[in-house]
Amino acid sequence: MSNVDIKREMSIYRDTVENYLEGVFPENSDDTTVRAARYSLMVGGKRIRPVLMLMISDMLCADREVILPFAAALEMIHTYSLIHDDLPCMDNDDLRRGMPTCHVRYGEATALLAGDLLLNSAFEIILEQAINYGAPAALAGRFIAKSAGGTGMIGGQSLDISSYSGTVTLDRLEEIQRKKTGALLTAAILTPFFTSEKHNANQDLCVALTEYASHLGLSFQIKDDILDVESSPEVLGKSIGKDAATDKATFVTVYGLDGSKNRLSQEFDSAYASIRTIESLGFDTQILTSFTDYLKGRTN
Amino acid sequence: MSNVDIKREMSIYRDTVENYLEGVFPENSDDTTVRAARYSLMVGGKRIRPVLMLMISDMLCADREVILPFAAALEMIHTYSLIHDDLPCMDNDDLRRGMPTCHVRYGEATALLAGDLLLNSAFEIILEQAINYGAPAALAGRFIAKSAGGTGMIGGQSLDISSYSGTVTLDRLEEIQRKKTGALLTAAILTPFFTSEKHNANQDLCVALTEYASHLGLSFQIKDDILDVESSPEVLGKSIGKDAATDKATFVTVYGLDGSKNRLSQEFDSAYASIRTIESLGFDTQILTSFTDYLKGRTN
Repeated sequence: MSNVDIKREMSIYRDTVENYLEGVFPENSDDTTVRAARYSLMVGGKRIRPVLMLMISDMLCADREVILPFAAALEMIHTYSLIHDDLPCMDNDDLRRGMPTCHVRYGEATALLAGDLLLNSAFEIILEQAINYGAPAALAGRFIAKSAGGTGMIGGQSLDISSYSGTVTLDRLEEIQRKKTGALLTAAILTPFFTSEKHNANQDLCVALTEYASHLGLSFQIKDDILDVESSPEVLGKSIGKDAATDKATFVTVYGLDGSKNRLSQEFDSAYASIRTIESLGFDTQILTSFTDYLKGRTN
Repeated sequence: MSNVDIKREMSIYRDTVENYLEGVFPENSDDTTVRAARYSLMVGGKRIRPVLMLMISDMLCADREVILPFAAALEMIHTYSLIHDDLPCMDNDDLRRGMPTCHVRYGEATALLAGDLLLNSAFEIILEQAINYGAPAALAGRFIAKSAGGTGMIGGQSLDISSYSGTVTLDRLEEIQRKKTGALLTAAILTPFFTSEKHNANQDLCVALTEYASHLGLSFQIKDDILDVESSPEVLGKSIGKDAATDKATFVTVYGLDGSKNRLSQEFDSAYASIRTIESLGFDTQILTSFTDYLKGRTN
């Protein structure tokens, strides 16, 4: 058993990220789009991506000043994707994190622009880092851009909206999820690697972090799909049973519930194996192990 | 009279940009979102922003290899903004450049993602430049990001969707247009300045280019508003009379048609005065003058 109090550690990291995010869009702006962007950005959530980025950053003894703006930018990209995903022409969701979605609260046109604003502002922050910290920051920024783009998250969303459970193959489903959910998680984990001038030539570390990211990403999505059928809206903070109702391809519809649980268990085993490899390279992985335990046990 | 054949010069610049854009999204991609992004990007248009950027770049004897990707990225940002603007929840336009708009052709969900893809891909290109050409390129990239963002184009769109002709003041209308149209044109003109290591410390040049951009941007929008009431859909390649029908604030609704023409004439006079300042700093401004003449006389 690890003696890390992971919920406390995560809440400290989360506070650090949220303090930074507080300053991105001013409260009570005259501009409705800014208020809408702030609403969706500050409505809460687990902040998994930026928390993970700061955790890996500390493990690599990287510079917090370099990393924190990237962590915020990644959360802003994640938030824009949720706002656009929730729109009527996409998933048409009314509830997110227990609160009205952006378009329900501010109208569709403003929600569309608020998403655009979040994506654009994330790149303003990333380019500021490229100005201040040179090539390693620019490389990390390009990696985030690719993870969010046509070969990453947007590519996954595009496959997703053209996939229905009756026709999708397992390979296709994995491709969707690696791009849609996995890519940004991988960016969270590799950004501190790219910006760490001490470690960014360590190829073994690069491989181990990438493998950890890959297994964590898949297990994250499989867990989400299981929770969508097994949890309640009160616990989950969003509509449940939506995937089945919309005939959307998920791991549960393709593998079945038991099959999904077996695969989930395998993916977590592989994630732990990657952590042991990282540890063998000389890094303290206690908190990463506890974080992985937390994700394995989460109920929302 | 200038002896520059401006239509020929513009078409050479346009071909240069379009050759680059051809390679951004592959033809016949399996991914519908990529096809939709390519459709809107390659459907044509005057390519005013990238053409202007290349023109200024040549005037400053800047490096084409540095500038061309920025020119393409700016056109991609412009195209994303058109796709999102045309969506049913915004302007609900069916026709753009004489062709069906992106959502009419590919559906709303795909058009939304295609816009996101264009914006994201533009920043992938910009960050690639920041990796290859260091701080001056990162500075130019940040300027483009700010021009496209909350203090620029998105800020202008946000003001625009909350403004109706009965209530908008002249100051507010100018603010909308400076942000919505002017900001990207300014970015087109200043990007070669930022990346030119020979000239980017010349503050007089910076001021003169910024003033030229400001007058050109306003005159561009006033001209658009006049054409919306005086032109035909055949010549313009899009719906006309739409501004009046939707009770949208434009220079014509606020100034009247004659007032708008007077203001247009003043703005062009100021643009020519800025060009004379640029010339006095030792630059060959023949083509810039001809380009300004062209914009003054345009009928679509």
